[in-house]
Amino acid sequence: MTAAMAVTGNASSLHGSGRAARRRVEESRETIAQALGARPSEVVFTAGGTESDNLAVKGIYWARRAADPRHRRVVASAVEHHAVLDPVQWLVEHEDAEVTWLPVDPLGRVHPDVLRAELERHGDETALVTVMWANNEVGTVNPVRELAAVARSFGVPFHTDAVQAVGQVPVDFAASGADALTITAHKIGGPFGAGALLLGRDVPCVPLLHGGGHERDVRSGSPDTAALAGFAVATRTAVDAQPERAAHLAELRDALVAGVLDAVPDAVLNGDADPAGRLPGNAHLTFPGCEGDSLLMLLDARGVECSTGSACTSGVARPSHVLVAMGADPRAARGSLRFSLGHTSTRADVDRVVAAIAPVVERARAAGFASAGRG
Amino acid sequence: MTAAMAVTGNASSLHGSGRAARRRVEESRETIAQALGARPSEVVFTAGGTESDNLAVKGIYWARRAADPRHRRVVASAVEHHAVLDPVQWLVEHEDAEVTWLPVDPLGRVHPDVLRAELERHGDETALVTVMWANNEVGTVNPVRELAAVARSFGVPFHTDAVQAVGQVPVDFAASGADALTITAHKIGGPFGAGALLLGRDVPCVPLLHGGGHERDVRSGSPDTAALAGFAVATRTAVDAQPERAAHLAELRDALVAGVLDAVPDAVLNGDADPAGRLPGNAHLTFPGCEGDSLLMLLDARGVECSTGSACTSGVARPSHVLVAMGADPRAARGSLRFSLGHTSTRADVDRVVAAIAPVVERARAAGFASAGRG
Repeated sequence: MTAAMAVTGNASSLHGSGRAARRRVEESRETIAQALGARPSEVVFTAGGTESDNLAVKGIYWARRAADPRHRRVVASAVEHHAVLDPVQWLVEHEDAEVTWLPVDPLGRVHPDVLRAELERHGDETALVTVMWANNEVGTVNPVRELAAVARSFGVPFHTDAVQAVGQVPVDFAASGADALTITAHKIGGPFGAGALLLGRDVPCVPLLHGGGHERDVRSGSPDTAALAGFAVATRTAVDAQPERAAHLAELRDALVAGVLDAVPDAVLNGDADPAGRLPGNAHLTFPGCEGDSLLMLLDARGVECSTGSACTSGVARPSHVLVAMGADPRAARGSLRFSLGHTSTRADVDRVVAAIAPVVERARAAGFASAGRG
Repeated sequence: MTAAMAVTGNASSLHGSGRAARRRVEESRETIAQALGARPSEVVFTAGGTESDNLAVKGIYWARRAADPRHRRVVASAVEHHAVLDPVQWLVEHEDAEVTWLPVDPLGRVHPDVLRAELERHGDETALVTVMWANNEVGTVNPVRELAAVARSFGVPFHTDAVQAVGQVPVDFAASGADALTITAHKIGGPFGAGALLLGRDVPCVPLLHGGGHERDVRSGSPDTAALAGFAVATRTAVDAQPERAAHLAELRDALVAGVLDAVPDAVLNGDADPAGRLPGNAHLTFPGCEGDSLLMLLDARGVECSTGSACTSGVARPSHVLVAMGADPRAARGSLRFSLGHTSTRADVDRVVAAIAPVVERARAAGFASAGRG
């Protein structure tokens, strides 16, 4: 990236520097396409996952509604990231859409028969289905291929937010059967500010950003040549390393979960305990009687960085919509933490969490009781 | 930027690394605000100029229409960049908008009395006015302060695309009276993929990208800490250096124009010949009897990189809408080139253009006549 940043050239210009920049952009496109089972022409570059999700949800909705005014329904899982949830809500409030929030099971999973039943009721009026590949909070992996096949059998485009999945589980666009798939660079070791929507050639999609007609007229804006180069290397590396890295992460994660449950016996693991149904780098636990923010701050002081819910909604003192949709008690859900492991994580990191967790929980509980007493 | 890229941390996370990233983002925001006469809370970070323009045009239109259903008209200059032009056109075709394209004079300038007359007719139904600070093709600088004052006197929000202006002429958001102002990093030596919309606190604007509620809920998406750091340094540097750089660029530009007109006597300078009314780094010339693309390729072969029209629409064989709006003959307009000078430009660069232009024009004319003969 630093090499690419030092080279002048707008990839939209016709002169030599511009054509060289365009070649670098197209090489990045080919690398990403090949790593993820897509054709180069199916890779629409964006500024990241949030933009890709907004483009898919709003763009496909608008295009499908324009083609047939009955297509006003969005079918989305109840546990989507806010980058999907909020665009859907906006379409309902401002663009005359209706929504069906697909329920999930207690592990946070959408079942294909639930989607099928919904499309049997409303398939004729459904603009698109959107179900994330893997959940960003509890790490539950959805049966994307089966869900996409159900949507396809009703002729409805299927979008999946695979931001969490790439590099953790195998992701192949063509094999998944999805019509649109969101990825982002910064979740796999690449830079912030680069993402893509993998979008089938025949999937209608109205642009969010109009302008020079870049990215097959679906997304205008001068390409960020350097960031895309970093995105391509990150994708190639993450996909190549996935099998080995997943095994390593799962081992660390299992040690973390076992150690925490040993230290805090009434803690509860959320999501799927079966490794096949969960992102290998994800551990999500509820600590009854605690506030998640207190736990986070106390752990942070001991050098352990974790999250309550999603980073994108941190600081908001309400229970996670994901845990609530999974049937958790809203009060208990607030005492939850997500530990994410990545390629830099070590056994020593895990040991540090395990050593810190019991005193931290004890202290957070004392604070919680004191606060309840004041209330 | 390379230092910032090496530091882990999502600026939306609550833990220590996240808070450190957030501090870096806020420092960038303060630097940019201070350099451009804005308050930090008025800086809404985006992925670049195209996104900022789309956000301003669509977001303010939607918000104003929601507040009063009569507000369905967009008043835009006829010479806007496609990042404004195309969103306006989309609003007309899909969002029930009406448009008034404000005419420009033969230099490409919008006159305040033209805007006043339009708002006297349609002020009650106008959602927003958008007029660029300086034109990206011919470099003509608009009387933004006067135009903004006219819009304000009718209670209509005023947006200006100042992508070309920053670093070339003084740009002060508060002093301009604009309600929204687009800037981008890559035009002032910063990275691609970073931009901002300066947006008054009281200006209603519907988000294009919904999600975690970043950027005062107007633009969601994880901030690109490193790119914003580069954007801040570039803005500070460009603004500090502006007076000296403008004088230097104008001198080079004047030498280029004089040299080209001397070598090709029937070439025509487009835009304002008065240095006060033109970007100092811009030279835009028409070469009668030539195709711009031929000129571009022949010059490129001699190491001179220039553009026909805007980079964002290069490769499209139609006359520039800017020149047509200025009253140029569409056929003649196709033989036009834009030479842009920047902080790396030297007198030797100018000399190379001047030495190359006459043989290149001669060859392009021969090709043009041959082609006309075939037709």
